[in-house]
Amino acid sequence: MDSVKVGICGLGTVGSGTFAVLKRNAAEISARVGADIVVAQIGARRDNPKCDTGDVAINRDVFAIAENPEIDILVELIGGTTVAKELVLKAIANGKHVVTANKALIAEHGNEIFAAAAEQGVTVAFEAAVAGGIPIIKALREGLAGNKIQWLAGIINGTGNFILSEMREKGRDFADVLAEAQELGYAEADPTFDVEGIDAAHKLVILASLAFGIPLQFDKVFTEGISKIAQEDVTYAEELGYRIKHLGIARGTSEGIELRVHPTLIPEKRLIANVNGVMNAVLVQSDAVGPSLYYGAGAGSEPTASAVVADVIDVARSLSSSQSSRVPYLSFKTESLSAHPVLPIDAVETAYYLRMTAVDKPGVLSKVAQILSDGGISIEALIQKEAADNANLVPMIILTNRTIEAKLSAAVSQIEGLESIVGEVTRIRVESLAG
Amino acid sequence: MDSVKVGICGLGTVGSGTFAVLKRNAAEISARVGADIVVAQIGARRDNPKCDTGDVAINRDVFAIAENPEIDILVELIGGTTVAKELVLKAIANGKHVVTANKALIAEHGNEIFAAAAEQGVTVAFEAAVAGGIPIIKALREGLAGNKIQWLAGIINGTGNFILSEMREKGRDFADVLAEAQELGYAEADPTFDVEGIDAAHKLVILASLAFGIPLQFDKVFTEGISKIAQEDVTYAEELGYRIKHLGIARGTSEGIELRVHPTLIPEKRLIANVNGVMNAVLVQSDAVGPSLYYGAGAGSEPTASAVVADVIDVARSLSSSQSSRVPYLSFKTESLSAHPVLPIDAVETAYYLRMTAVDKPGVLSKVAQILSDGGISIEALIQKEAADNANLVPMIILTNRTIEAKLSAAVSQIEGLESIVGEVTRIRVESLAG
Repeated sequence: MDSVKVGICGLGTVGSGTFAVLKRNAAEISARVGADIVVAQIGARRDNPKCDTGDVAINRDVFAIAENPEIDILVELIGGTTVAKELVLKAIANGKHVVTANKALIAEHGNEIFAAAAEQGVTVAFEAAVAGGIPIIKALREGLAGNKIQWLAGIINGTGNFILSEMREKGRDFADVLAEAQELGYAEADPTFDVEGIDAAHKLVILASLAFGIPLQFDKVFTEGISKIAQEDVTYAEELGYRIKHLGIARGTSEGIELRVHPTLIPEKRLIANVNGVMNAVLVQSDAVGPSLYYGAGAGSEPTASAVVADVIDVARSLSSSQSSRVPYLSFKTESLSAHPVLPIDAVETAYYLRMTAVDKPGVLSKVAQILSDGGISIEALIQKEAADNANLVPMIILTNRTIEAKLSAAVSQIEGLESIVGEVTRIRVESLAG
Repeated sequence: MDSVKVGICGLGTVGSGTFAVLKRNAAEISARVGADIVVAQIGARRDNPKCDTGDVAINRDVFAIAENPEIDILVELIGGTTVAKELVLKAIANGKHVVTANKALIAEHGNEIFAAAAEQGVTVAFEAAVAGGIPIIKALREGLAGNKIQWLAGIINGTGNFILSEMREKGRDFADVLAEAQELGYAEADPTFDVEGIDAAHKLVILASLAFGIPLQFDKVFTEGISKIAQEDVTYAEELGYRIKHLGIARGTSEGIELRVHPTLIPEKRLIANVNGVMNAVLVQSDAVGPSLYYGAGAGSEPTASAVVADVIDVARSLSSSQSSRVPYLSFKTESLSAHPVLPIDAVETAYYLRMTAVDKPGVLSKVAQILSDGGISIEALIQKEAADNANLVPMIILTNRTIEAKLSAAVSQIEGLESIVGEVTRIRVESLAG
């Protein structure tokens, strides 16, 4: 198969992100799949001025995509549970594979949809339905498939986490932060789904089914929102060594499965307690691995599109390869591996921590600073300690800005050549690890 | 296909863990695959007294497994790069799928092994080769397959991270902690592979190939260990707002790919800076998702076995199903979904944070404590604030031990009925989220 044909239904935030990612990363994706993924048709009630769809045909009737015999995969991104359900069932009936980001649709009608898909022998993929760009569905369904899952706990609503993070970091009130979240576009005009936990409950139901092998049971989730959390609760929790997070928790017990969404105090030293802002994270406790955690953007145009496209690639790899080589060994097809060189360390740019031992007399720092400055390296921070009694040597610690390793090495050689510097300069690279 | 037959070569730490996980979780695994996974034969030079292999035939010659026509999947867990390479190539030549945990083998001979496997149309799976139980290979190869990966940075050697964590948390010296790590079995008698970064370099090479679509090039990695890190560097880094971690970093630039393993200062507020002890984590920056992080146990018998078994399940799902239904929609086969009930919230056990407003007079706390005690609930912590001037109301915060929600609700009703308590009691559940 040379190309796999995709029809995108819905051209809102996630639809336009999906189109953009498929277009921008087309070369990488082809090299990973061994076939091109082509958006053959779009179904959307209206154009999206933010999305340049080029010469792809846009049909005002989304059902036309489900009827188009050219389409291999229908991508449902219209949202809601009525038209979306009808559309997905129609696509399945017509033998198309379906990829959807619709958590409400899967949580509330998944059992029926999967039964129809099984009958037709098609895939329904929904990685984007939970925690956006984090591949948590794949982790539970495949990565941890050898484990008995004991429990999982997730920050699976970014709006709620943003509100609680702001309340803690800036001492603000719930209502105040909610208003800002709405202005920033994190929260809907009607914030009920987010702050009352319904969105999280949809996602939790899906995670629990994958983890425990139970049918989807949205009506059984206990759901409590964050609207009652007062500023003082956040403060008292902190005094006690805890953070308040809005968690979805699923736990297997011998009596049954706990399924609950509610604000939760968790010890501040836990990694998940330090997941802030709109980010999502899911902590999974399983019998062989122990704890594992998956963190990333849980919403937004391209993070969600990433999960949609991953599902499309999964289906396309199955359609275009033999079973044994569905996923290329090194992710990209062997014949597509790149000759892009590995850089020598001298060409790498990074910042540096330098520690040296200096003779405690005037002018040493200025000599060191001059060498760095001549090398085009500036000083970001400096620690200079007092000499201990009877000692005439002092430690001097310098944090530099980013520079090429070759330049830094040259400067360090010069510094080590100074009479007033004793022994070698310790260097440790510094990375901000920011996006 | 009713069953998929596996041969395990090597019965050391990971081999015995793999056998144990396949045996203990056989029912879940069958329900996820739709076929039984049967260990048909073991190849091991000697028995492992810690592993009860029951009536599974053990052959002293591992090559017998590669020759056994009954075996579908050969699991290579003998380690090293000489016999292991010969064994894997023999299995491939005989048309068997291969699962391996051998990072050195893949990093140094992967290109040759994959070429042989592609010719035979078989899978070579190696999730366990990097970061143990964390499904990072799957995340890069499938979950993030729609993304252009910009860079990744990983704590991918647990021994090194344990040493640096202890140096920071307890102010200990490198040599002192290394000696303890060796006693605890975290570090080998010859710790070179761990502390000088060779083990991390093996893993980084594999991650970089998956991320950037380049062939495996182990000889190109810049590698620097942690043996030169002094206690004072850890302290100074902390003064500057940083933590020192031993990272493997791969970054794509227009000139080439950076591939480097070295100690690194990173800002202490980064999530990955807070990954401590023997745990591993990989932070991936990609164009659609932005940052995402994968955290868990990077070594050990069962965490590594989890990844081995996940790979076995991947192959078994391909062998036993049609392409379209390779992975069940909800992870477990629909006909195997469980009727295990979802518990009502009243039956859930958790700890509680209670906040109430009390009249500032003697005896209120004792009444509240009595009610809790009568309900079998004990107090773990208490905050009682002084009344503000002119106020006769004080906030009272109680942290309880774990109890059933129904009991807590009954006690809260009684507390709310006290004359000396004003208004409702705020309750927020507390979870330790410990294993």
